Amino acid sequence: MKGVIFIFAIVIVFTQSCNMTKLSNNYSQHRIAIIVHGGAGNYNSKRLSDNKQALYKKYLRQAIDSSFSILESEGSAEDAVIKAISILENAEVFNAGKGSVFNSNAKIEMDASIMRGDTKSAGAVTGLRHIKNPISLAAAVMNNSEHVLLGGEQAEEFAKLYNVEFEREGYFKTEYRYKKYLKAKKRDKVELDHDEKMGTVGAVAIDINGNIVAGTSTGGLNYKKFGRIGDSALIGCGTYADNSSCGISCTGVGEYFIRSSAAHEISSLMKYKSMTLKEAIRSVLFDQIVPMGGRGGVIGIDRNGNIACDFTTKGMFRAWKTISSEKISIFEKQ
Amino acid sequence: MKGVIFIFAIVIVFTQSCNMTKLSNNYSQHRIAIIVHGGAGNYNSKRLSDNKQALYKKYLRQAIDSSFSILESEGSAEDAVIKAISILENAEVFNAGKGSVFNSNAKIEMDASIMRGDTKSAGAVTGLRHIKNPISLAAAVMNNSEHVLLGGEQAEEFAKLYNVEFEREGYFKTEYRYKKYLKAKKRDKVELDHDEKMGTVGAVAIDINGNIVAGTSTGGLNYKKFGRIGDSALIGCGTYADNSSCGISCTGVGEYFIRSSAAHEISSLMKYKSMTLKEAIRSVLFDQIVPMGGRGGVIGIDRNGNIACDFTTKGMFRAWKTISSEKISIFEKQ
Repeated sequence: MKGVIFIFAIVIVFTQSCNMTKLSNNYSQHRIAIIVHGGAGNYNSKRLSDNKQALYKKYLRQAIDSSFSILESEGSAEDAVIKAISILENAEVFNAGKGSVFNSNAKIEMDASIMRGDTKSAGAVTGLRHIKNPISLAAAVMNNSEHVLLGGEQAEEFAKLYNVEFEREGYFKTEYRYKKYLKAKKRDKVELDHDEKMGTVGAVAIDINGNIVAGTSTGGLNYKKFGRIGDSALIGCGTYADNSSCGISCTGVGEYFIRSSAAHEISSLMKYKSMTLKEAIRSVLFDQIVPMGGRGGVIGIDRNGNIACDFTTKGMFRAWKTISSEKISIFEKQ
Repeated sequence: MKGVIFIFAIVIVFTQSCNMTKLSNNYSQHRIAIIVHGGAGNYNSKRLSDNKQALYKKYLRQAIDSSFSILESEGSAEDAVIKAISILENAEVFNAGKGSVFNSNAKIEMDASIMRGDTKSAGAVTGLRHIKNPISLAAAVMNNSEHVLLGGEQAEEFAKLYNVEFEREGYFKTEYRYKKYLKAKKRDKVELDHDEKMGTVGAVAIDINGNIVAGTSTGGLNYKKFGRIGDSALIGCGTYADNSSCGISCTGVGEYFIRSSAAHEISSLMKYKSMTLKEAIRSVLFDQIVPMGGRGGVIGIDRNGNIACDFTTKGMFRAWKTISSEKISIFEKQ
């Protein structure tokens, strides 16, 4: 009889425990979320045909669906962000990874950065020419190096130690970008290319444990000169994550995001001025970046899993997915 | 008679005007100030002989005296900061310009950055090998480029356009640093070199117009690998200036200053949490950098010309000068 009662008791405890885990998972899963962007610009909707829009949206969908699957199966925000950005880097239509723009020497020079909101550890890379997925190398720096930012050929030496995938220069080259390079060469002018399609990519995710991770990846500016490094490689400027506030990825004319420490500033406004994520993003874009003469867009997720996106341009390639909502959009604001 | 009264009136107005200008100048001159640093570290006072201490102090004095002369004669904070940092870059005892440490390939790789608090314009450079005064190139980027951060050989191409002074590699080499390199090579280990003399240099000044400028310059870490870029090249991390709060230059293990956007964070704590400069510097160093495992020091000037300096290490090479006070110090806190 004692044995039966004991087994009965164990069954009850076990059932309760399962229910609690389920409840806890349900609770947590309510805040898992992924948001991605593929750049902000003053796109001319006439030049961006329906077919092209559909192509961009296809990749944005792939990015959020793949990342969300990771989050749903209790994977980490870090894996979700790397997955989303890798998909966009591999898509030739964005200015990151394959499809990156050329510098004034007709070379690819890619930058990327990633940051975790729990440990505030970060990794970033600049001036890459042969790394298939710069975001993977940024993550390798974050996880295996005592440094945060590595640059140029020497950063690629580091990549060899961690089995990061290389590609020949030809892999990254697209006819579309090469034509843009030739056009800029004719005028000998750096293009702050946001009046057409810019296409820096980024992602922010929050996982079942409430950890927020943000990442950004870019080919930079078409026909850029003098080894220019933009905000996408810079922690606090193009990318920032802090579990006590938010995760942020920026896109736009990077110089203005550097001068305002944009990603970090959004976090500060939330922490110290009690702004919501949406308010903080809007304030940095319209009260700081625009008055300086800059433009661009920002995506973010706060510690409660709220997502936000805003931009000063006509459009921004973006998509997000949560338990209760999803959206893929280019022009209209949310 | 009318003519005499008229002339008399003009004389009175003129005298009043002169007095007002004088008063105004006196008022403004009360807040001109310069503060410089030559790195923070856990110096062993036994190994830092009196002679060596005197040598460091000689250069720190030259830096503050030359810069303060500029400010006294109504020169700009930008000129004062460039002057101070150039003097420290030219002094072989600091790890910036001449006397920079070697990377793992036995090469010099220097970084620098500068920012103006009025326009929030900024310039920065990384991976320099032949620029006598990296701070001058950072200023040339700020004043002549649409970009903020330029890197490597291509940054030196930019320098050629603006008559920035070049030096052969041999100029930068000192026996002391080369021995340190050989020692690190034997152990094949990057030195987070703050347990001895690190020697990143920096300066912050406020001029008669209330403009604040901050700058930082470094040779980075001894035996650094993989094109590591530290906080001294990064706006918001090692250097920041905003006339509504303060100007900041940091030194220490740069990775922690990047992950906390240290210089920008100090400004945020003043703007949004109403901290004093001293409180904000202390908070970032001891509540953020130290808990992450980092160490270093910070100098700053607020918009009222108050100066502050703090460090988590045993010592910090530093000096400041205002209308009413001056100090040159290595060990004891202010």
